[in-house]
Amino acid sequence: MTYEFENVPEATAARIAHFVPLRPDASLLGMTQDRVREHALLHRLGLPTAPGVEVPHRDALAACVAAVGTPCRLKSALGGYDGGGQWRIATPDDLPRVQAALAALRHEGRFLLEAEVAFEREASILVVRGTDGGMACFPVFENQHVDGVLVCTRVPARVSPLAASRMEAIARTLAEAVQLVGTLTVECFVTGDEVRVNELAPRVHNSGHVTVEACGVSQFEQHVRAICGLPLGDPGVRRAGAMVNLLGTEDVRPVRLAGVAEALRDPDVHLHVYGKTASRARRKMGHVT
Amino acid sequence: MTYEFENVPEATAARIAHFVPLRPDASLLGMTQDRVREHALLHRLGLPTAPGVEVPHRDALAACVAAVGTPCRLKSALGGYDGGGQWRIATPDDLPRVQAALAALRHEGRFLLEAEVAFEREASILVVRGTDGGMACFPVFENQHVDGVLVCTRVPARVSPLAASRMEAIARTLAEAVQLVGTLTVECFVTGDEVRVNELAPRVHNSGHVTVEACGVSQFEQHVRAICGLPLGDPGVRRAGAMVNLLGTEDVRPVRLAGVAEALRDPDVHLHVYGKTASRARRKMGHVT
Repeated sequence: MTYEFENVPEATAARIAHFVPLRPDASLLGMTQDRVREHALLHRLGLPTAPGVEVPHRDALAACVAAVGTPCRLKSALGGYDGGGQWRIATPDDLPRVQAALAALRHEGRFLLEAEVAFEREASILVVRGTDGGMACFPVFENQHVDGVLVCTRVPARVSPLAASRMEAIARTLAEAVQLVGTLTVECFVTGDEVRVNELAPRVHNSGHVTVEACGVSQFEQHVRAICGLPLGDPGVRRAGAMVNLLGTEDVRPVRLAGVAEALRDPDVHLHVYGKTASRARRKMGHVT
Repeated sequence: MTYEFENVPEATAARIAHFVPLRPDASLLGMTQDRVREHALLHRLGLPTAPGVEVPHRDALAACVAAVGTPCRLKSALGGYDGGGQWRIATPDDLPRVQAALAALRHEGRFLLEAEVAFEREASILVVRGTDGGMACFPVFENQHVDGVLVCTRVPARVSPLAASRMEAIARTLAEAVQLVGTLTVECFVTGDEVRVNELAPRVHNSGHVTVEACGVSQFEQHVRAICGLPLGDPGVRRAGAMVNLLGTEDVRPVRLAGVAEALRDPDVHLHVYGKTASRARRKMGHVT
């Protein structure tokens, strides 16, 4: 099931790499699967993040919250996706509730505890690096999340030129440091000119779907060029674009799509349906650009 | 084998239409499978073509050539594709050679005999018509054929505005006359402002591949919108484009592609490979835009 590749353990990926070239490689996969290692990498490279510490076990939570301060967010080191595996701690009074939730889950793993950072906007940047070390960044995308799930993306992003160039520098630094071959997505919080990295994803990204219509080359074509050792295409914006995710509203099989004809009445609107056979509440079923 | 749908007999298509909606319908399929019926349709609608007559059997060829004059082209009514089933008759002296070739083929079918028309350029236009009768034309594409096989397409076409608007009017007249639902490609010969229809194809077309990168909507998306009863997208040109077919040079399996990295060195060049498992001389294997 290639679409679940991101969840393959690093050791398994490393064994696969004995037989075929693996791009991106196993170490990047392992790094981005583990929030604690990811945070340590960013720290080592001197890249800006929210202040955070590793919580080795749920029993250490109270001491860590005292060190980081509130409000803060507790994030499971492994297995988070679309806002899952996260708990907000607004004040120390929330501690017993969160500890009870972790006990009920029998959560025995490690966590990253991050101070909550106020921000104006969420933005992402995709850097693609080829086998020859050549790199190209897509323009910055502005993202809107609701309850941890991406709802809409727009390009150009409403961020300052300095913030955008900082994001590009961060993405290039990371790609070079991990000797990326393929695509790396860097999600950031932006306030004025200030940028902090929130999360990394070693792959094409939901926020990059808008590249299909908006950019000189799509994220998918660019990624294939990179991992095939071919020259990269031009990721520049050809026309402003926006993407809105189509999220499931209920558990339904087969899937029913409503409002398609109304959405497509604007001739510049394009529909993408992922062909998933069953809908679940908040599951990503497709998008329009 | 849906990709051979164009060769399904009209009667079979009509039976299929009893069970599911068939778009375009069986009668258009039958019409465009038969060069004689296609020519008759164009004539009935008063649309310009090369002068031509039906040759009911190969024994009638000499009389028909005398009527049409030389140079002329004999085209098998059924089964021609990429220049196959065609014979050029430059002077009456060629008649014995062509008749011998037909006898060797045991060709018992009908033919269309068309006067050869001098022209400056070859061009095509794609009209897409929806279930509600709404129509949209793609811009005119300029095409270059070698030995009957399309080699390259460019947009915008170097044809006069009047020639382009005549092509659009022809395409709309045809689409309305046959109550098209889907895509119809009209291939034309153009000289100055003068336009003659050469051939019709009731489908997305090789010359329309350039729409993927050059137009607001691709021919494929537009066709799906039309046959699904959805509003049509904007087919206007977003940036000038050109498409060059990748033709097989020899019989090879598996396929080898040469020169890809060199072609993609220009970041605005895009490669499309059709995934055919075997190459044959002059077979269409992919294209670059």
